[in-house]
Amino acid sequence: MWMTWKCAVMGLPFGGAKGGIAVDPTDLSTAEKERLTRRFTQELRDVLGPNHDIPAPDMGTDPQTMAWLMDAYSMQEGETVPGVVTGKPPIVGGSKGRTEAPGRSVAIITRAACDYYDRPLSEATIAIQGYGSVGANAARLLDEWGATIVAVSDVNGTMYDPAGINTHAVPSYDEEPNAVTEYADTVLSNDELFELDVDIFIPAAVGNVITEATADGIGADIVVEGANGPTTSTGDTILNERGVPVIPDILANAGGVTVSYFEWLQDINRRSWTLETVREELETEMVDAWNAVCVEYESRDVSWRDAAYIVALSRIADAHESRGLWP
Amino acid sequence: MWMTWKCAVMGLPFGGAKGGIAVDPTDLSTAEKERLTRRFTQELRDVLGPNHDIPAPDMGTDPQTMAWLMDAYSMQEGETVPGVVTGKPPIVGGSKGRTEAPGRSVAIITRAACDYYDRPLSEATIAIQGYGSVGANAARLLDEWGATIVAVSDVNGTMYDPAGINTHAVPSYDEEPNAVTEYADTVLSNDELFELDVDIFIPAAVGNVITEATADGIGADIVVEGANGPTTSTGDTILNERGVPVIPDILANAGGVTVSYFEWLQDINRRSWTLETVREELETEMVDAWNAVCVEYESRDVSWRDAAYIVALSRIADAHESRGLWP
Amino acid sequence: MWMTWKCAVMGLPFGGAKGGIAVDPTDLSTAEKERLTRRFTQELRDVLGPNHDIPAPDMGTDPQTMAWLMDAYSMQEGETVPGVVTGKPPIVGGSKGRTEAPGRSVAIITRAACDYYDRPLSEATIAIQGYGSVGANAARLLDEWGATIVAVSDVNGTMYDPAGINTHAVPSYDEEPNAVTEYADTVLSNDELFELDVDIFIPAAVGNVITEATADGIGADIVVEGANGPTTSTGDTILNERGVPVIPDILANAGGVTVSYFEWLQDINRRSWTLETVREELETEMVDAWNAVCVEYESRDVSWRDAAYIVALSRIADAHESRGLWP
Amino acid sequence: MWMTWKCAVMGLPFGGAKGGIAVDPTDLSTAEKERLTRRFTQELRDVLGPNHDIPAPDMGTDPQTMAWLMDAYSMQEGETVPGVVTGKPPIVGGSKGRTEAPGRSVAIITRAACDYYDRPLSEATIAIQGYGSVGANAARLLDEWGATIVAVSDVNGTMYDPAGINTHAVPSYDEEPNAVTEYADTVLSNDELFELDVDIFIPAAVGNVITEATADGIGADIVVEGANGPTTSTGDTILNERGVPVIPDILANAGGVTVSYFEWLQDINRRSWTLETVREELETEMVDAWNAVCVEYESRDVSWRDAAYIVALSRIADAHESRGLWP
Amino acid sequence: MWMTWKCAVMGLPFGGAKGGIAVDPTDLSTAEKERLTRRFTQELRDVLGPNHDIPAPDMGTDPQTMAWLMDAYSMQEGETVPGVVTGKPPIVGGSKGRTEAPGRSVAIITRAACDYYDRPLSEATIAIQGYGSVGANAARLLDEWGATIVAVSDVNGTMYDPAGINTHAVPSYDEEPNAVTEYADTVLSNDELFELDVDIFIPAAVGNVITEATADGIGADIVVEGANGPTTSTGDTILNERGVPVIPDILANAGGVTVSYFEWLQDINRRSWTLETVREELETEMVDAWNAVCVEYESRDVSWRDAAYIVALSRIADAHESRGLWP
Amino acid sequence: MWMTWKCAVMGLPFGGAKGGIAVDPTDLSTAEKERLTRRFTQELRDVLGPNHDIPAPDMGTDPQTMAWLMDAYSMQEGETVPGVVTGKPPIVGGSKGRTEAPGRSVAIITRAACDYYDRPLSEATIAIQGYGSVGANAARLLDEWGATIVAVSDVNGTMYDPAGINTHAVPSYDEEPNAVTEYADTVLSNDELFELDVDIFIPAAVGNVITEATADGIGADIVVEGANGPTTSTGDTILNERGVPVIPDILANAGGVTVSYFEWLQDINRRSWTLETVREELETEMVDAWNAVCVEYESRDVSWRDAAYIVALSRIADAHESRGLWP
Repeated sequence: MWMTWKCAVMGLPFGGAKGGIAVDPTDLSTAEKERLTRRFTQELRDVLGPNHDIPAPDMGTDPQTMAWLMDAYSMQEGETVPGVVTGKPPIVGGSKGRTEAPGRSVAIITRAACDYYDRPLSEATIAIQGYGSVGANAARLLDEWGATIVAVSDVNGTMYDPAGINTHAVPSYDEEPNAVTEYADTVLSNDELFELDVDIFIPAAVGNVITEATADGIGADIVVEGANGPTTSTGDTILNERGVPVIPDILANAGGVTVSYFEWLQDINRRSWTLETVREELETEMVDAWNAVCVEYESRDVSWRDAAYIVALSRIADAHESRGLWP
Repeated sequence: MWMTWKCAVMGLPFGGAKGGIAVDPTDLSTAEKERLTRRFTQELRDVLGPNHDIPAPDMGTDPQTMAWLMDAYSMQEGETVPGVVTGKPPIVGGSKGRTEAPGRSVAIITRAACDYYDRPLSEATIAIQGYGSVGANAARLLDEWGATIVAVSDVNGTMYDPAGINTHAVPSYDEEPNAVTEYADTVLSNDELFELDVDIFIPAAVGNVITEATADGIGADIVVEGANGPTTSTGDTILNERGVPVIPDILANAGGVTVSYFEWLQDINRRSWTLETVREELETEMVDAWNAVCVEYESRDVSWRDAAYIVALSRIADAHESRGLWP
Repeated sequence: MWMTWKCAVMGLPFGGAKGGIAVDPTDLSTAEKERLTRRFTQELRDVLGPNHDIPAPDMGTDPQTMAWLMDAYSMQEGETVPGVVTGKPPIVGGSKGRTEAPGRSVAIITRAACDYYDRPLSEATIAIQGYGSVGANAARLLDEWGATIVAVSDVNGTMYDPAGINTHAVPSYDEEPNAVTEYADTVLSNDELFELDVDIFIPAAVGNVITEATADGIGADIVVEGANGPTTSTGDTILNERGVPVIPDILANAGGVTVSYFEWLQDINRRSWTLETVREELETEMVDAWNAVCVEYESRDVSWRDAAYIVALSRIADAHESRGLWP
Repeated sequence: MWMTWKCAVMGLPFGGAKGGIAVDPTDLSTAEKERLTRRFTQELRDVLGPNHDIPAPDMGTDPQTMAWLMDAYSMQEGETVPGVVTGKPPIVGGSKGRTEAPGRSVAIITRAACDYYDRPLSEATIAIQGYGSVGANAARLLDEWGATIVAVSDVNGTMYDPAGINTHAVPSYDEEPNAVTEYADTVLSNDELFELDVDIFIPAAVGNVITEATADGIGADIVVEGANGPTTSTGDTILNERGVPVIPDILANAGGVTVSYFEWLQDINRRSWTLETVREELETEMVDAWNAVCVEYESRDVSWRDAAYIVALSRIADAHESRGLWP
Repeated sequence: MWMTWKCAVMGLPFGGAKGGIAVDPTDLSTAEKERLTRRFTQELRDVLGPNHDIPAPDMGTDPQTMAWLMDAYSMQEGETVPGVVTGKPPIVGGSKGRTEAPGRSVAIITRAACDYYDRPLSEATIAIQGYGSVGANAARLLDEWGATIVAVSDVNGTMYDPAGINTHAVPSYDEEPNAVTEYADTVLSNDELFELDVDIFIPAAVGNVITEATADGIGADIVVEGANGPTTSTGDTILNERGVPVIPDILANAGGVTVSYFEWLQDINRRSWTLETVREELETEMVDAWNAVCVEYESRDVSWRDAAYIVALSRIADAHESRGLWP
Repeated sequence: MWMTWKCAVMGLPFGGAKGGIAVDPTDLSTAEKERLTRRFTQELRDVLGPNHDIPAPDMGTDPQTMAWLMDAYSMQEGETVPGVVTGKPPIVGGSKGRTEAPGRSVAIITRAACDYYDRPLSEATIAIQGYGSVGANAARLLDEWGATIVAVSDVNGTMYDPAGINTHAVPSYDEEPNAVTEYADTVLSNDELFELDVDIFIPAAVGNVITEATADGIGADIVVEGANGPTTSTGDTILNERGVPVIPDILANAGGVTVSYFEWLQDINRRSWTLETVREELETEMVDAWNAVCVEYESRDVSWRDAAYIVALSRIADAHESRGLWP
């Protein structure tokens, strides 16, 4: 359901579904993972397809998994069908810029939110929870665009520098695990991170971190959700009451599925895009989605989250009404 | 046949065919229209398809009809096939700018004709018969581009203003039926409309209005056909003898099928275009078609209508000769 | 195999294969050629297809042959499938600029080579063996871009003009057979051609001309292979030892298959490109391929030929490793 | 419609339709007939198929025509599909016994009618109009089964022998045209034929022969329709009023379509039947159909024709009610 | 799983699966049931098919439901596909004898068991729990074959007649609900039924009736399971210890799925069988299955239930080993 | 070609082709053979299929190989397709009686030949070269039918007993290699075998054994070819000149492909046959083929081999003429 809404906010011609195998991939050899993935593809074959259901990587899978799935499906079909799955390595039909896309969309939406609230990036201070792919990519882009990144964190603690961290000099978790506190001059606790008096706080680590317990202490003026579901229902209510706008995840981190859509376009139209094209098109899509959400936000006196849901659900409802339910 | 030629003039990879149901849609409830459309789709299913035959709306059908057809075909096929039909609502795969397209193409061709005959739009006077979608869209665009629209009409009469009508202030028939004479200061009869001494007369209402009876009285220097078949065979002969050039319908109002082609491209390539892109691409296609017709007009000493047919039929003949008839 | 490598150097999503009929087409009437082509298509039908195997013209076939193949396959499939074959006449789905493409790519790569070796085209002298489609198109483009074409040849001899030949004034073999020596003021023997002291020598006639016998006498500083396989293995070794760089065929004349790819894109995405677009896209692809080969050339201390093979085979190996061999 | 009813009387899983080409086959060379048949197959291809619509020979076509149709369809499909058409030569999937089937069914039904009316064949006299395939096959079988064939006719007149004709000694029209009167000792006029005082009269020539003009004079006690539609509506009324039972064509000559069904079974199940099997199965099917019509005839006090229609239409109605009309 | 084993015991080329809708069909109108069935078919379409998964009626569905399913699937596929589902009304491809089949197989297996234990049917006394389709059909057949049916029951009680009930005179539950006790001279309680001293007891009502509580009291010498799962695991153990052989359900009532298989054969081979053929073929299949179970029963010293499982699982294992698990 | 003729003699709707892998299967592990077979199936997939090309086992393959092929093809197709290959184990769709079929057909044809030449089996003496599947099955059947088998051989020598060998007591090569000479009381050399004065000699070992060197010494009155190609062209000529009739392989050992056809019928019609049915149907087919060859033998004064070829080639020619060669 969440995926359906995220696609609808972005105006992508995708629905939403999830499937998986109950197994711990860290217990499997590479050959076992390959065989398991190919058999899973065989079992799901009837419901997969570039015009039916297009998997993408999620927990426990990576581009290699998607390459196996693509190959298995293609060999079954008797022809190469790159569009059956996204998140593949670029050499077999994946899109450039797919990995950086969620972080990039967080950065774009953060910039848009700053503009909306008249806080130009060049004057904004930002704290980011999590320095994995989403957090680091967002941090570095916002850094490049002139923002002051005062804090980034991982599970071990928070690197803090009120003068602004040189984000390119700090390895992301994928580049070097646990680097954040190692490279830090000043280390704060992760509780202190929440309370930093910054313009923007971007929770980009895991779900359910802004809760009944922490929402009151949030020191930022604006929250942009980088992770999926970082704010609990109660946490959301508290921030709303406090007047802290929360830009919801289904908008802010939708760059991932958007570039998955781009990958699918490249696959079915059989031409790869340059990295520059991917970035420009992502920029356009994110700004369009932001603007659509703004219209609802302003005209209906609702939260940003509700505005995003209104955009998504209205589009689904309109399409459903046009097509009808038949037969 | 007419549709085949229109597509060939525009260089679209479409042929032509028409099908329908012998029923008065105004006698049907919405539910009856839906059931009839879906059953019709079922019966025609073997001959429809995005690579076979692609219906588009015509008399008695509208975007909702096309949405039902698309949904019925898609459910039968087991996957969403937006490219099976054009003229759909944009929310289910229709193109932006589809409705305005016929009028826009009339405006573009009128501008090209004015340029050809050295009558810049800024100095040209134009009378338009009909103020429905085609007439109003053409009028407003030409107005925006600097032309002086001195007369627009509906069945009740003709609004006349030699100083130029503010076309955006006059509701089209779709916006407000019968508004033309209501909003007019000066009302002429529809017979007088024909005889107005203008640079351009655009019949954009119904067929067979420039006839043996009216052709002699046409006061304009150039006629641009906005409706399908406004000039009878005899009417055409008279205008030719009088030296009044007639820009034929299969060129002038081909914007509709051209944007249908754009919709199909968006559907099969799975990416929607912005309104700006649709307009720019339509501009390019219309100008290319105009130029192709010009080449024949100038090199063969024929009427504009014959020149358009020569372009169309030569392309069909060349393709037929290349492919052969087999098996 | 050669075709697979050429496609891989260019990054095209094609493999390579060749098929044919053991017959002398000059012994056949047009009707016999048509029947033979259509039956051949019928027999091969199971292995052809826009996602399976896409023939293109080669020895003894021309655009008309490809049109028959497309028509036969399409009639069997029950719908028009332009993407099943490339090299068709534009009127039935062929690409503009297909014919000039191999020569154009030779010109682009020659220019890039000149730039690489700091010999701007405006100061470069060029001798070209063969004045068919490849040679003449390359010659005229390089001429337009400022180079001095001092010699062009056909089987009868070599036109030589140290001041630069007006290449547009000399008909190519396709335009007027044997014109080269007829239009020449100074005619050299074809042996003398090899020994001309020029910046660039482009063998664009047939294979196996730079051999053990001729390689020592090559007077040019750089060789750009326009034909397929003009340099024998021994000839290649000699030029390498002499320090004469040889830009290999699988890079230099890859414009043909690249525009075949463009034709396929136009066919499967159902929109034709203008000639300008074809030329711009070809420029981009050729420059990208040149740059990729440069990287290997510079980093590995190998010949240009080996660098091109490294690019090609690395891409194939990476894709193979990602997909695996299954089932 | 007629074909649908005939199939329903017989309980065959076929519907009914007819299609054709407006051409006189006697004006065409064999090669022209072949090309025309193959092109017709190509044009109809989308609606043909062993599970869609299965043509069979009718006026102006013969087994060779059906072989061409089968071959054309099969080559288009890429595999041999014998079940797409019936009436083929046995060597390419036709059924043995197809030609004799209509006459055989007439004989079987005649025998059943005789039994029903307590006139054992060994004591029955029979007159037959027409000595083509239907008439001669019926005559010979009834002759073998012990009946006395007192008269057979062709357009030239009627052979008459109250002691019984040796039907095997008289060539049928297909074997030797016009043989009937040549081989006859006693020739009656064709008007006299109608009035012969026999047990059974079998009109097996053309339609509309038992009319207002002739029905009153029919001398037989029972009429079995061998041709399609030999009795006009008025003729039928007269015979009914006179108490002369008429066994209708859709029952009596249904052997043809029944063996077409057998041919289809042999084709889709891929095993040919012996002639003996065909005859035994036809016997079973005809007797079952006769019995089903008898039930209605006896329980409803209607004519044999109405009884046959009741059987047919009830079956169609039951199937329609079970399936419904959807979508 | 149960269905898989039952099919394997019978040697049918079917596997096993169950699907359904969580709805009470008695709450639905006929039109609602039809719409629900058709939509369910649409949703399941990708996994249904005559070579994929072939539904058959079970709780809350009937032949009409199957007709809707067949029609819906067929309309989606564009051709009539009777083999997609079994249990249809015969008029749309169902098999004659489908309804009586489970009871008939119970009778056949009962007769075989009597023979095996040297108790000819003519001397055997039988008590039957349940007088629905299974119980009544079994009772009547055994009655016809000479057995003495001393008791039949429904939820209201047990009709008892030591001289033998005239089973054809007692309406089954489908013919007249609650008739058993109404027509009875002597009515026993349903507890007394279990303890009757008969040769054969056939539980043919519901599951789990021979339990820890009742197994000790069973008065019969042999139990033949007519219902699915009438004996609990504990009940089974007790009967085994007491030496009362239990002929298991997956053998005894397998006539239903066997005639479903016959229906499928008739549908895919496109010829309906007579009732006599269905009965003869069912007889053959039941006897073959009985014999196969006998072999295991005798050679392995196991219960009849285990012998049946051994037959089933050995066949599945052999097929699995032959094919392997791939890919 | 040979296979095509053999199928045509038998009237089977199959053509002929052979394919294979250049590998020594004895060098491969079972897992290697499985992987090789499955990959081979994948590569050939486009040309295989129950209606396209149906492999059967030949040198180096066995039923397990066919099971892998069937499974691989089926998994690719997404449904079980038993009819794609014959010679499978019966548990996965193979036919009973497939293994014994070639020997059985040799026995049937030998019996027919004895009848033809008025040598009832009960009085005939027979020598058989080879005691593998073909030789042993033929020997045992002829033994059962009353013939006197005086000699059987393997590579080690010939068991000879003029009183008749008890063939069931001698293990075939598949049952126990090299058993022939071990079980023999009298052993002849394999040269002596040829010269035995018997009614029938059946070479059932390998090809090319009746040659220029041995044909003159053949002591039998009739030769029935059990192996494929046991008689060389010269050997054939000599026997013809000597007046020794040779019943050719394409007739005599066609039982194998005939039961392959039966297996295919069982697979596509989805019902297995009993062993009795297979034997009866094989009997029928062999006798029909024998009779067809007899007709040509008697009417044309040719050898039995030529008569068989005439039957085969006439059928192919007739079918070809009916269908034509198109497109």
